Amino acid sequence: MNKNKKALTILMRTRMRPLSPATNKINQMQFPSMDGKNKVSSSQGASTSAHTDFKRVRESMHSAISMNKTEILDAALADFSEGYFDLSCENRRVLLLTLAREYDLHRTQVRELMKQYLGLELPSGDNAVENVYEEEGSFSAFYRIERNLRHSLKPVYEVLFERLNTHPGGLRFLSIMRADILSFLAEENIASLRALDSFLKEKLITWLSPANLQLHNITWDDPASLLEKIVAYEAVHPISNLLDLKRRLGVGRRCFGYLHPAIPGEPLIFIEVALMKHIAQTIQEVLWDDPPIPECEATCALFYSISSTQPGLSGINLGKFLIKRVIDVVRKDMPTILTFATLSPIPGYMQWLLSKLATVDRSGPTFSENLLKPDEESALLDAAEEFTSGKNGMEVMWNLLSSTSHEWVNSEKLPLALRTPLMRLCARYLFQEKKRGKALDSVGNFHLQNGAMIGRINWMADRSEKGLQQSAGIMVNYIYVVDHIEENAQLYFSKGQIQASDEVRSYLEPQENCREETKD
Amino acid sequence: MNKNKKALTILMRTRMRPLSPATNKINQMQFPSMDGKNKVSSSQGASTSAHTDFKRVRESMHSAISMNKTEILDAALADFSEGYFDLSCENRRVLLLTLAREYDLHRTQVRELMKQYLGLELPSGDNAVENVYEEEGSFSAFYRIERNLRHSLKPVYEVLFERLNTHPGGLRFLSIMRADILSFLAEENIASLRALDSFLKEKLITWLSPANLQLHNITWDDPASLLEKIVAYEAVHPISNLLDLKRRLGVGRRCFGYLHPAIPGEPLIFIEVALMKHIAQTIQEVLWDDPPIPECEATCALFYSISSTQPGLSGINLGKFLIKRVIDVVRKDMPTILTFATLSPIPGYMQWLLSKLATVDRSGPTFSENLLKPDEESALLDAAEEFTSGKNGMEVMWNLLSSTSHEWVNSEKLPLALRTPLMRLCARYLFQEKKRGKALDSVGNFHLQNGAMIGRINWMADRSEKGLQQSAGIMVNYIYVVDHIEENAQLYFSKGQIQASDEVRSYLEPQENCREETKD
Repeated sequence: MNKNKKALTILMRTRMRPLSPATNKINQMQFPSMDGKNKVSSSQGASTSAHTDFKRVRESMHSAISMNKTEILDAALADFSEGYFDLSCENRRVLLLTLAREYDLHRTQVRELMKQYLGLELPSGDNAVENVYEEEGSFSAFYRIERNLRHSLKPVYEVLFERLNTHPGGLRFLSIMRADILSFLAEENIASLRALDSFLKEKLITWLSPANLQLHNITWDDPASLLEKIVAYEAVHPISNLLDLKRRLGVGRRCFGYLHPAIPGEPLIFIEVALMKHIAQTIQEVLWDDPPIPECEATCALFYSISSTQPGLSGINLGKFLIKRVIDVVRKDMPTILTFATLSPIPGYMQWLLSKLATVDRSGPTFSENLLKPDEESALLDAAEEFTSGKNGMEVMWNLLSSTSHEWVNSEKLPLALRTPLMRLCARYLFQEKKRGKALDSVGNFHLQNGAMIGRINWMADRSEKGLQQSAGIMVNYIYVVDHIEENAQLYFSKGQIQASDEVRSYLEPQENCREETKD
Repeated sequence: MNKNKKALTILMRTRMRPLSPATNKINQMQFPSMDGKNKVSSSQGASTSAHTDFKRVRESMHSAISMNKTEILDAALADFSEGYFDLSCENRRVLLLTLAREYDLHRTQVRELMKQYLGLELPSGDNAVENVYEEEGSFSAFYRIERNLRHSLKPVYEVLFERLNTHPGGLRFLSIMRADILSFLAEENIASLRALDSFLKEKLITWLSPANLQLHNITWDDPASLLEKIVAYEAVHPISNLLDLKRRLGVGRRCFGYLHPAIPGEPLIFIEVALMKHIAQTIQEVLWDDPPIPECEATCALFYSISSTQPGLSGINLGKFLIKRVIDVVRKDMPTILTFATLSPIPGYMQWLLSKLATVDRSGPTFSENLLKPDEESALLDAAEEFTSGKNGMEVMWNLLSSTSHEWVNSEKLPLALRTPLMRLCARYLFQEKKRGKALDSVGNFHLQNGAMIGRINWMADRSEKGLQQSAGIMVNYIYVVDHIEENAQLYFSKGQIQASDEVRSYLEPQENCREETKD
């Protein structure tokens, strides 16, 4: 109790708000900076001092790559990572380009080895085992050059990554550095920087292998410094106050995080779970309706939020392992729980639907494919009379949904009129709309590749500003059927096949259930 | 107290003896085996059943490499690792050879990529940065093929290693598998197996990076299952009974181990430390003289034993990081401790000395180089009269030292007569005798590469059977001078330079201090 009280006091002093989209920048600022060396780059002498800074960081980077003495090396690594945080955005970009280009691999050496290798005579490869055994000796040269090639194909900058990884705070630094690389790549696709990113990503995947991660059941007894991270990084349903947080960690709720020993006290990713009698249809039931049911009556574990804390780990699917581990843990702890499901947002639905409804250019929206059925259209035109006009149902729908005030929600008739087409089109969006063989919706793609199926779509499940804007308030339950997780993942991975319940399929025309793309 | 009592009871039931040299085999047997599937290979139908076993394990190995569905994959990995333990030594050898040869890389694919690569025109490499920037686009093809080559240069068996690493118990299994590979390589140097080993070793180095290891202060409060490992693996000074163990974990003593999260409850390596007023000269003072001094009076941390528990991690220097970490921890905890030293065995001294004294063949020993000074020789001949005869001091010395009964130790005069030449030659052995630029003595090489210096050699420091046989009872203090660790390691690494105290140097002729090799 005492411990909790203290945690409370500390938390009260912190801002109970999620970080802005500039999370990344804020992270960087939080990194310890030595004896106030931060230069204020907006001051008069900024450009000279920024230049000196850059040179200094560039030099410490070089030392960190080329030095051999560990003690001085530690200093160089510390200098480099601290100096990096002081750099302006543009200087960081130049530094990373320098790293990518000047600490690349030695191509002449690689070519030399390749020529040697191609000069070797290849023992006929697909021989029976006996033959291969006899030829053992002739392989030695292959093994030797292959080994040398593996080494010389590694860019010089690998040394920096490796050294940072074993340097205190280095793994976190690398993750922040990668977040920067990704943001620079989003501005401009530069081949050398792309190669740097892809190499760093592979390294991070190795270092963050599930074998190195610890599953932690986050509770109200955890240090405030850790709970503060949960508040800051909760990306799906922002935590509004202390009571909200306490509830999410209390009876009938679970929160699990993956921690890496090199980044203590800060989960890389965490998932929030509600223990329920039935699969919740609205986020209201999970977040605000009380009281929670006694845990012994729960039959369903509902994953209602999963958030990763490190933008620099983008593309590294830690969530997949986390969900699998959590299912294992919950099954073992609570044998009465038989259903594992999510209550997930559909972040791309409205964007897709609006673009389907109309192509917008300077002259305004143009409406093409008719997405509405005749009875849907007439019901909509009736209900919308007092709000907006348009030459047809599509235009009316576009006007209603693209309005940021979401007035339609509070109308008497409109929700009723919109429900049928919006649910039907949502099923289509989730089940059929793809990009390169993967579900178009990012959250959908995440759960489907992890082996879930689409279980149910729920009308007016999230009435928050964000929920209305993303998906007209609709949410979806993905279901993890324990015995089919691997099979589903495999079918999705190899054939792009999405599994969905009969209920979801029933929104679609019979023929739509078999086709990949549909035209109305 | 209660906890300790329980630990005691459990420990009492276990055998309080270090494992035999067959440690490796015993480990393997301890690995959980499923529902008694172990086949008794000495029975009548042994060879058929062994053949079936082999086929089964071979198949599970193939599945473990080629399967994609995680759930079945886990089963395949479990089948494979359990099946492996059931195999006879010879079948393991064949299986590992199969893995090395049939799951090697795809050489035709590698060659194809190389030809493509060599066909690319290399932009002039050492250009100024500006030029390189302009040529950015032309590098894309290089990056792409380099990336593909990095992947295709990885043997197919990497998949098995990676998958085992993330499989529960897999890392430990890989370490045991490597121990097997090493023992097969010791029998016969096979190129493909050597390549397998070298690849696996690099993987293990990555996975066992210090960033993934946890330093644990092992105390009497630790679980008996962990303490049992300390007893079993203590390789330097066997733990003789419970009191001995308790003392090594009690006041004035420390024991630190490195643990990996995937191998819980079993340190990969551990070090035993005694807190003392002065650097101990004999192991007696550390192990048996009591009582220990109050910790606040200690000024010296003496590392008197370092043992690694996994033969499969041979060649992976975890000790270096462990010693550095322990020095850091002790310095922080106990600022009065200013000296960090070892009391180390000299495992190769007698073997070297005997081979120097005489070349032994069928006709008996032949004595060549005279290692004794005239006064040493006459003193020795005097003292040895009643024990042994020989045509000169060298022969007498050889006879005395090669006797497994070590009678000379109990004589009145002999220890006195032998002390001068044995100490002098020991200093020479440690300071000057090298192999490929590294200290000939393995323990010496270990501490010198970690940055220690030779501080002092101690007469009659270890009178145990093992101590007399290895080094005529002499032990050495290596000193870690905190400010010079990196410098020493660097000098040793780059130039083979060994640092030694004036005291050690004083045993040698003035000119011997500068020369690398000496002749008398």
